[in-house]
Amino acid sequence: MRNYEALSKDVNLLGVIKAAAVIGRYLNRTNLTYYSELSRLISCDVFVKHENHNPTGSFKIRGALNFFHHMSKEDLETGVLVATRGNHGLAMAWAGHFFNVSCTVVVPENNNPEINRIVESFGADLIVQGRDFYDAQSYCDELVDSAGYYYVEQGNEPEILNGLGTMGLEIFQDLPEVDVIICPIGGGSGCASLLKAAQAVDPDVEIIGVQAERAAAFYESRKNGERVTLEGADTVADGLAARSVFQLPWVIMKDLVADVVLLSEEEILEGVRLALQTTHNLAETAGAASLVAALKIKERLAGKKVVLIMSGGNLDHEHLLRALPWR
Amino acid sequence: MRNYEALSKDVNLLGVIKAAAVIGRYLNRTNLTYYSELSRLISCDVFVKHENHNPTGSFKIRGALNFFHHMSKEDLETGVLVATRGNHGLAMAWAGHFFNVSCTVVVPENNNPEINRIVESFGADLIVQGRDFYDAQSYCDELVDSAGYYYVEQGNEPEILNGLGTMGLEIFQDLPEVDVIICPIGGGSGCASLLKAAQAVDPDVEIIGVQAERAAAFYESRKNGERVTLEGADTVADGLAARSVFQLPWVIMKDLVADVVLLSEEEILEGVRLALQTTHNLAETAGAASLVAALKIKERLAGKKVVLIMSGGNLDHEHLLRALPWR
Repeated sequence: MRNYEALSKDVNLLGVIKAAAVIGRYLNRTNLTYYSELSRLISCDVFVKHENHNPTGSFKIRGALNFFHHMSKEDLETGVLVATRGNHGLAMAWAGHFFNVSCTVVVPENNNPEINRIVESFGADLIVQGRDFYDAQSYCDELVDSAGYYYVEQGNEPEILNGLGTMGLEIFQDLPEVDVIICPIGGGSGCASLLKAAQAVDPDVEIIGVQAERAAAFYESRKNGERVTLEGADTVADGLAARSVFQLPWVIMKDLVADVVLLSEEEILEGVRLALQTTHNLAETAGAASLVAALKIKERLAGKKVVLIMSGGNLDHEHLLRALPWR
Repeated sequence: MRNYEALSKDVNLLGVIKAAAVIGRYLNRTNLTYYSELSRLISCDVFVKHENHNPTGSFKIRGALNFFHHMSKEDLETGVLVATRGNHGLAMAWAGHFFNVSCTVVVPENNNPEINRIVESFGADLIVQGRDFYDAQSYCDELVDSAGYYYVEQGNEPEILNGLGTMGLEIFQDLPEVDVIICPIGGGSGCASLLKAAQAVDPDVEIIGVQAERAAAFYESRKNGERVTLEGADTVADGLAARSVFQLPWVIMKDLVADVVLLSEEEILEGVRLALQTTHNLAETAGAASLVAALKIKERLAGKKVVLIMSGGNLDHEHLLRALPWR
């Protein structure tokens, strides 16, 4: 059993700064854009961090690149293995391509075929296994035992978190006077990385998480003071559909998240509409969640400088259709 | 009467390189992203230049920043005046804000109210005048006579074109082996700036323009060997709805554009769907035109490295509604 308290010390500002140098070789900075329409609606100064503009369409690419950079040749000899429904797998496959590492991606049976095709186009091996993400994860455990892959549990890799933390570093560089950052929480790696950056740079900045009512794993864990695994996590927001947060983010987040906003399914879809209308960006359901969460807590944000993380843009047809008001 | 042949010599690679230094102070580079799905559909290697990711949602911001940088204090004392339906005005208002120059933006009566609000939020003065863009332009001529503003005719300012040319420079830096660049032609400034960059760096690169069948001003001009002004330019693609190209781009483009693809109204809307589905980006109608144009001429692109300019993302509700297949 790993000591996650100890491991959490490997996620820190120096690690994030080193990661920024690595990532700068592969990625352009994402924009932190001020939106007057959102600012008017929410009655504060609203800036959106456009992680949806990254290659592979999400912030995950930051973690994947930094992970591969830090692995030894021996570690990666037999290739890496990931379980995913989308963004993590896309990012690992894309980054693996640059580092010449073979990448095996396990997805559940009902996975989005668009995503599967793109994963394969990056040269990864795709395995379809199990009814849901948790079945896919279990299958990965079996494969590691039999085939010796390096299994990348995204939330529990410190160098993935340091990579993701570069998103926070960029926010402080572009808007040092930020008061509040609102970000979605699925497995928790993005939020934990932001917390580590904020703790080092300006601990007064409030980090507020967003979860789906139907997948409120961190919300429940925070309430109970221990990491909870839900029976299910059936939400329209793929990126929030985690039955638990990973151990490492839990250790980092448990005492430091200022608040958690829970969203109904209808509110999550409303976020996609809001993103289209006010930012002219296609955001995926989890990617738009911070927008509608901010609207929901506008009283406590009044007059502040607020950064909303648009974590990804990989919205498929079905969800776009469900989100649109004009059917 | 200005000598546009002479003026065209002020648009050149050195001017573009200088502009890149200016623009780098304000803008992040935009991504040139490879898309496997588009590549599969079009049977070539497809890269999209994401100008829609720029602040103000279009490539125009490059020209506006470089323009203000080059103007003298005296030129700008009374402020600048622009006629616009959208992206040019947004860019000038946003950039004017940085350079502390008052900006008066004239829009026609039926202009998109979302755009108008954003223009005003950047601190510009908005004047609503005339039935269409051409009325708005005429009103600008009157205002210049009476109020002494500097009237910025976007296509005829060499430093705007040098600024826009940085988009081409970035393409050559990121993909020096590019074979073809496909870009929309409205007033012609974007395409002309790409041509100047390509002529200097690699004249073998083919620049292919895209116009609406219902606003084929450059297509007709090219056929006739002289600049044509159409009776009307009534197309769903705002960014292509120009009754003529500007004089300066005409001088640059007339002999150097490899081809012009004309799109029906339905094809233009199909481009928006194609952008949503294959790139997960909201593109405005003109911004998505290069995607569907590439699909239309896929035989001649086979096996090549093709860059499609996604020039902007400011699609309003009405056009999104019209573009979607699921109504």
